[in-house]
Amino acid sequence: MKKINSKYEVFRKETQIIIYGTSTKAGRLFDLILLGIILLSVFLVMMETVQSFDAKYHNQLIFFEWAITIFFSLEYILRIISTDKPIKYICSFYGIIDLIATLPMYLSIFFPGTRILSVIRALRLLRLFKILNHPKFTSQSIHMKEALKASRGKITVFIYFVLISTIIIGSVMYIVESKESGFTSIPMSIYWTIVTLTTVGYGDISPQTPLGQFLAALVMILGYGIIAVPTGIVTAEFAKRNTNQDINVDNTKITCTTCGALTQNKEAKFCYHCGNKLNNNQ
Amino acid sequence: MKKINSKYEVFRKETQIIIYGTSTKAGRLFDLILLGIILLSVFLVMMETVQSFDAKYHNQLIFFEWAITIFFSLEYILRIISTDKPIKYICSFYGIIDLIATLPMYLSIFFPGTRILSVIRALRLLRLFKILNHPKFTSQSIHMKEALKASRGKITVFIYFVLISTIIIGSVMYIVESKESGFTSIPMSIYWTIVTLTTVGYGDISPQTPLGQFLAALVMILGYGIIAVPTGIVTAEFAKRNTNQDINVDNTKITCTTCGALTQNKEAKFCYHCGNKLNNNQ
Amino acid sequence: MKKINSKYEVFRKETQIIIYGTSTKAGRLFDLILLGIILLSVFLVMMETVQSFDAKYHNQLIFFEWAITIFFSLEYILRIISTDKPIKYICSFYGIIDLIATLPMYLSIFFPGTRILSVIRALRLLRLFKILNHPKFTSQSIHMKEALKASRGKITVFIYFVLISTIIIGSVMYIVESKESGFTSIPMSIYWTIVTLTTVGYGDISPQTPLGQFLAALVMILGYGIIAVPTGIVTAEFAKRNTNQDINVDNTKITCTTCGALTQNKEAKFCYHCGNKLNNNQ
Amino acid sequence: MKKINSKYEVFRKETQIIIYGTSTKAGRLFDLILLGIILLSVFLVMMETVQSFDAKYHNQLIFFEWAITIFFSLEYILRIISTDKPIKYICSFYGIIDLIATLPMYLSIFFPGTRILSVIRALRLLRLFKILNHPKFTSQSIHMKEALKASRGKITVFIYFVLISTIIIGSVMYIVESKESGFTSIPMSIYWTIVTLTTVGYGDISPQTPLGQFLAALVMILGYGIIAVPTGIVTAEFAKRNTNQDINVDNTKITCTTCGALTQNKEAKFCYHCGNKLNNNQ
Repeated sequence: MKKINSKYEVFRKETQIIIYGTSTKAGRLFDLILLGIILLSVFLVMMETVQSFDAKYHNQLIFFEWAITIFFSLEYILRIISTDKPIKYICSFYGIIDLIATLPMYLSIFFPGTRILSVIRALRLLRLFKILNHPKFTSQSIHMKEALKASRGKITVFIYFVLISTIIIGSVMYIVESKESGFTSIPMSIYWTIVTLTTVGYGDISPQTPLGQFLAALVMILGYGIIAVPTGIVTAEFAKRNTNQDINVDNTKITCTTCGALTQNKEAKFCYHCGNKLNNNQ
Repeated sequence: MKKINSKYEVFRKETQIIIYGTSTKAGRLFDLILLGIILLSVFLVMMETVQSFDAKYHNQLIFFEWAITIFFSLEYILRIISTDKPIKYICSFYGIIDLIATLPMYLSIFFPGTRILSVIRALRLLRLFKILNHPKFTSQSIHMKEALKASRGKITVFIYFVLISTIIIGSVMYIVESKESGFTSIPMSIYWTIVTLTTVGYGDISPQTPLGQFLAALVMILGYGIIAVPTGIVTAEFAKRNTNQDINVDNTKITCTTCGALTQNKEAKFCYHCGNKLNNNQ
Repeated sequence: MKKINSKYEVFRKETQIIIYGTSTKAGRLFDLILLGIILLSVFLVMMETVQSFDAKYHNQLIFFEWAITIFFSLEYILRIISTDKPIKYICSFYGIIDLIATLPMYLSIFFPGTRILSVIRALRLLRLFKILNHPKFTSQSIHMKEALKASRGKITVFIYFVLISTIIIGSVMYIVESKESGFTSIPMSIYWTIVTLTTVGYGDISPQTPLGQFLAALVMILGYGIIAVPTGIVTAEFAKRNTNQDINVDNTKITCTTCGALTQNKEAKFCYHCGNKLNNNQ
Repeated sequence: MKKINSKYEVFRKETQIIIYGTSTKAGRLFDLILLGIILLSVFLVMMETVQSFDAKYHNQLIFFEWAITIFFSLEYILRIISTDKPIKYICSFYGIIDLIATLPMYLSIFFPGTRILSVIRALRLLRLFKILNHPKFTSQSIHMKEALKASRGKITVFIYFVLISTIIIGSVMYIVESKESGFTSIPMSIYWTIVTLTTVGYGDISPQTPLGQFLAALVMILGYGIIAVPTGIVTAEFAKRNTNQDINVDNTKITCTTCGALTQNKEAKFCYHCGNKLNNNQ
């Protein structure tokens, strides 16, 4: 019995290294294959909704979707088996997504209409963000995350201000504009305000009265102007980090062993302060 | 008489602390409840304009709106009673809004059509900006207000320039384009110019002649380019403030052991405030 | 004869001071009145094109337009008389605009249809930019002009790049999309490309084929991304100027009379370097 | 024979200098003429697709297109003859474009419909980017290229994030919205998401259900906000370069009188290069 157990244990450990690890070649390969299959599965679900494509390749699509579903199910079971804390994985965000990504196909056996729910698989794309932990991107994304984190407080205040403005402008436009122009209710007016303020401008609802158009013009200029605020906030954070990075990363300062003065000039052979020779053999 | 008076005075004082103050627990609770009721009242007015919702819950809506109106009326009376300067409050911006937020419902008894005016209550949302004085947001919003204040002069010059450009472009487009394309008058052309310059682009009016489309393309490129100006102005202000803030945060300040004054100058040997020697051996 | 001449000369000089000068009270008043009348004249021309307004107030509009035309004509004549270099004024940009702003009304006596050309008066609004020379705005607008001037080189390269991209993308879209979608010719396709690239998006022309929509999505992301370029250019220039301004304008440094060390701390009473008392009575 | 050969060699060398070189007057002139003819040829192809223009000037257009085709063919042959590495040129990017720019007209003799393919000539416009190597623009475009290159890593991460968000939002909108609103398939929904996120907003597809409009509003605000990210990245890079440039320009460098090395450090007393004392009495 013990031998079987230990064999199972070895299998479990190896699976764990392949599925969860990224340090071994097999682990990295598994990640790549998984990402490829997720992309393929999302592509298939996408194409299935295109009538003309589905009509032609319906059977192939069904076959591949079943293949992917079985692969995902196996992966899900292996993930539970191989991890040391199966409950934690099952209840985690990714654990839940991994499960519900497989369910719609099984459900569709009993309830044919539910297969469309497999679009939920698109959420597995979030796993792709793991790539951002790849060394090549790490420094870049850390830099960006930090800048965005630092901007969060100000952005919150800004969005708060925009939302209240949106409600007030929406209410005013509802009174000013007739229902015929599309401003059928205040929520609809607020929707129009957001469409206009963000300069999206679908044009499905647009003011028809002179006063409404005048107010709309003000909203547009407001929206055109306040885009400067989030941009300003984020840019200032990026600029700060860039400058700091500059100092920390690029310039390896040389310390004069005689007087202690620091210099950033890499070509410097002599200390600018005391004139002694520098040891510059880094 | 005096006793009653003093009792009334005590009630007045307590009410004042609750309504106007934010330092006591009751004061903060009142603020929260008030904000909640304002949000609810705005939500109700919004939903009332949605035909399908109003048809279903008309009576409940009417009931809640009356309840809120009475609450707002009581609050308004208490605010007048408890403050030390009632006239000042009544004539203040918030005082007027607080009053007209309650009026439409009372008016609607005599003139049924006026109930819709209670959308004016949305203006009470402005009170929500008081939250920005919350310590959590204060530093962020001060920072932003300062940056925006500093940008005001340049932004004014910019908007002034945009408005004149808008009139000139609008006039030219009116001559170039026929009335069939929607350019029915110069104000309409100016409206189109603003819609285009701000990159909103509804498409309800759009040039049809080759020359008009050529000019429109120029306006678009202009609009695409000049958005850089307000963004540049605001960003530069944010960046400046961020850099300054940086100095305050990063640099370990030296505290004078004699008078407690802080200095940021690392080379400082003497306190700038009391003139005593600093211990600077960190 | 000499007396008349000198009287005329005095009148000429006084007129010159009033019309061209801004240093006397009368000169400033004249400028203000002129600006007001220009604004009024533009407003009248604008309202004349609004059918419903014109129908009601046609006679009043005609009266005021004649009054303004005569005022502008007198002003034009006075400007020629009072200046020392009349030919230079007549041939200058403003001289030509001042003239053609009056002509359409006189022409309309003989050719009724030409009155609409008085919209050309809108160009007189350019005179409003003279306000930017007002001390209140001077520093702001100099600052902005400098920043924009410094960005000119890079912006030119950028627009050059955008225009070539526009032609290539437009040609590709013309081949990809059918004429039914609105891509009737390459110039039309280029117009669509500019509408899309600048994120205006009228929607009067929009791709219908899958390939066309895919390419359009690429163009949108490109347009969304490259707006960063002019913004980056202008912002960097503003930021540079802001930082420099900061150093020069805000910080009135205090110099220690004993050791010569500079401090930016306005509250400093003692020199941080030598500990001597500072003379801080600015 | 040798004489002929050497004559041909001289002709080849001269042609090479004119076609490939930019140092001689003839070389620059040839470049200018070539750019002019490319522009003209693109203009002609563009106008040919305008029905009304083509109807009038069909024969002239055909004539000029043949003239240009023959010119391009001659240029192509001369380029092959005169270069020292003909194979390399033929296989190069520009070599292939130069060839296929001439083919459609020759093909159109046998297959009348293929003449439209001469729009491919628009790609020759890419040669116009050679102008960017003109000294006037070099510093500007180097500066921009560097800034954009440095932003590349972060922009890639950003676009990656946007694309995944686009797929997820598109899938959600497909489920939420009915096919009648235009959300006929997931690819179509993704197309709508990109149109909305980039604030283009054609309006050919727009959500009709309250939930769909609510989600659309969130997407718009997201799109309005995240434009700050690429702008922030690029601006920070521009600002960094601008500041560095600043240091070089503003700060009066100190030149070592012994070795000629320049230093920016104002406190420097000794040359960092040769160790001699600096004369720093400016």
